[in-house]
Amino acid sequence: MLFSRGLYRISKNLRGSLNGCRRYLSSRGQNHQFLLSNNYQSTGSSTERVLRSLIFTKNLPTLYSARHQIHNQSSSIIEDELDPFSLVADELSHVANSLRAMVIAEVPKLASAAEYFFKMGVEGKRFRPTIILLMSTALNVQIPELPTSNELEGTLTTELRSRQRCIAEITEMIHVASLLHDDVLDDADTRRGIGSLNFVMGNKLAVLAGDFLLSRACVALASLKNTEVVSLLATVVEHLVTGETMQMTTTSDQRCSMDYYMQKTYYKTASLISNSCKAIALLAGHTAEVAMLAFDYGKNLGLAFQLIDDVLDFTGTSASLGKGSLSDIHHGIITAPVLFAMEEFPELRDVVDKGFDNPANVNLALEYVGKSRGIQKTRELAIKHANLAAVAIDSLPENDDEEVKRSRRALIDLTHRVITRTK
Amino acid sequence: MLFSRGLYRISKNLRGSLNGCRRYLSSRGQNHQFLLSNNYQSTGSSTERVLRSLIFTKNLPTLYSARHQIHNQSSSIIEDELDPFSLVADELSHVANSLRAMVIAEVPKLASAAEYFFKMGVEGKRFRPTIILLMSTALNVQIPELPTSNELEGTLTTELRSRQRCIAEITEMIHVASLLHDDVLDDADTRRGIGSLNFVMGNKLAVLAGDFLLSRACVALASLKNTEVVSLLATVVEHLVTGETMQMTTTSDQRCSMDYYMQKTYYKTASLISNSCKAIALLAGHTAEVAMLAFDYGKNLGLAFQLIDDVLDFTGTSASLGKGSLSDIHHGIITAPVLFAMEEFPELRDVVDKGFDNPANVNLALEYVGKSRGIQKTRELAIKHANLAAVAIDSLPENDDEEVKRSRRALIDLTHRVITRTK
Repeated sequence: MLFSRGLYRISKNLRGSLNGCRRYLSSRGQNHQFLLSNNYQSTGSSTERVLRSLIFTKNLPTLYSARHQIHNQSSSIIEDELDPFSLVADELSHVANSLRAMVIAEVPKLASAAEYFFKMGVEGKRFRPTIILLMSTALNVQIPELPTSNELEGTLTTELRSRQRCIAEITEMIHVASLLHDDVLDDADTRRGIGSLNFVMGNKLAVLAGDFLLSRACVALASLKNTEVVSLLATVVEHLVTGETMQMTTTSDQRCSMDYYMQKTYYKTASLISNSCKAIALLAGHTAEVAMLAFDYGKNLGLAFQLIDDVLDFTGTSASLGKGSLSDIHHGIITAPVLFAMEEFPELRDVVDKGFDNPANVNLALEYVGKSRGIQKTRELAIKHANLAAVAIDSLPENDDEEVKRSRRALIDLTHRVITRTK
Repeated sequence: MLFSRGLYRISKNLRGSLNGCRRYLSSRGQNHQFLLSNNYQSTGSSTERVLRSLIFTKNLPTLYSARHQIHNQSSSIIEDELDPFSLVADELSHVANSLRAMVIAEVPKLASAAEYFFKMGVEGKRFRPTIILLMSTALNVQIPELPTSNELEGTLTTELRSRQRCIAEITEMIHVASLLHDDVLDDADTRRGIGSLNFVMGNKLAVLAGDFLLSRACVALASLKNTEVVSLLATVVEHLVTGETMQMTTTSDQRCSMDYYMQKTYYKTASLISNSCKAIALLAGHTAEVAMLAFDYGKNLGLAFQLIDDVLDFTGTSASLGKGSLSDIHHGIITAPVLFAMEEFPELRDVVDKGFDNPANVNLALEYVGKSRGIQKTRELAIKHANLAAVAIDSLPENDDEEVKRSRRALIDLTHRVITRTK
């Protein structure tokens, strides 16, 4: 669940800071080659297929140049606008209040356990709800079947928005439930700067509070009366569990496989936000194609985020190797920088197979990563996914509404922030 | 989650044994006074209201006599019939196969964790699925709106049955998920005679496997496309959690309150089966009244079961106090026999408040229970709830179909078995 900690950091540290975005935008011209050379086999979502077909028909320079223009244009507009978080600030506080109301439980101890992360001040920056609310606006293209009566349309829009807001709340509940269960598993003692629930109240209550949140999320889901959406978000819980299990029960071959790593990363980090974005589209009655674009945005943003997180675990705030917390490698978790380094130096495999209980082995692995292009290739892969997320937004049906356009720009802005963060 | 262990025992030990039923039936004549004198305030379900109104209008003797006749009549028929478990044996094996198919997971370790209790031979006797399948038949009264075409009716009936069977599977998944999480919490090292999952595979995998089962249950629920049913069973998960939290975080006043104890018992033991029975009625398109009768059956059967379980914890197979495992009192859990004893001997409260780490205190509490009518009053309360469960079945709309009648008799038979079991 590194995503959450990192997303908290990104929203805290990059809020309003557009220098990074500008650096990212101006660096995009040098990065397109990577799209042609990268070995990672994407899992074949629709946006990726579109992009790959463009690449393979040698249209990339045209595509890139057009997109580059769009983004430079967006960038100058964004500078005059509020940042993505401010754009939905009022609604976010509505979501926060709803969440506090939704976790009221009959038993005081359960209530206080469940609301632990929903309290004022420790609730994080609600990165997921921000994305979901922005996506809701970005997709509220007028649906042709709606009656033209303004009044009815207004009611329907309000109701739709409140259903979409409910998805934001459910997503946050599922996310916090998984944090609670992860904390038990990892025996973590801090979370978001305060003591983790299991540390403060014991493992037992943390597991129960997680179950309680899952059940409340399920009740809220049922109230939306859309069984496709229920199924979608129930599958997310399964993915979170599958990702966690994949991480803890790898064979040596799996631990050293980039495909396995990307699949696990999708399950653990990207599934929740991608499926929530898809749910937003489904609730608005969009076509399967639009729903898939929403899904692709969330998926690629999540993957880009995690890849950068993996880099920062090695480099921390500086660009130098070994300055990060090195938490993954110390826990025996092999991430993209090591996997790319292994492609260049196959002998690193033996080091990995020995495990990292011995600090000398950690240093040896770091040496290999340092002399390889592992960090750089991981950043490039992250940029590829950030690009794919932006492409998904750009591929949405055109819309002239200013609010819709602003939300789409904000979503693209988030893809920049994810890449350019340094902690 | 004592219900499960006990239900396993009951189905194993009482299968086909009708002596107990006969003893119970012949003893019913002496127990009706208890209905008038018992102090426990029922929570006001519809069956209870019906029964109470009958009691308060002094119709009880008539009611009792009529019911007594019905049950004596039923009893003689039951003797010529198969027992409840055999009645649905074929379908139960279908449920067992489905469950094994439903918990297939991408990650082998997760799959083996999740299917741990669904394997052949260790899957328990599927008491809950038995009740649910019997309830399905008991409620499949011809619904007036159905078209008269036999063929269409046949298809609808088959589809309805397979949806109801799905509830049996979902119920079992929720139940096993809660066992897995309870095992982690309690650090239990055996379950159904084999090593508990957390003991064999570690806490981490047991929590993840529980989450995985809950998510699969939710996906299966969504496939039923009935949001009321989704909501009902999601609430059950909340109840299981609430009951567990109530048990672990009591104040002295709560620990010594009969209302609190009954509420906790409903949440921990009776909610799953009562709401599943209600779901069966809802899927069949029954009225709210019939759905409430199905709910009342499950609720009262569950409560009766737990009350007898609490007695057996003191008496074990013999009728003598102190012959049971005394597991509850050693864990500081105060159950009905102690609560009733406390009504007679208020000084027992001080003993309870001192806790039971000191064996001398356990012995002192046992002394009080022994000289009180605690055990007897707990049995009487269990009988009251078993009666209420039987009343719920008897109150269902009349039906002449032989299969329907046989299933209803089997459900009533189960209320006898619950009460007369000795281990």
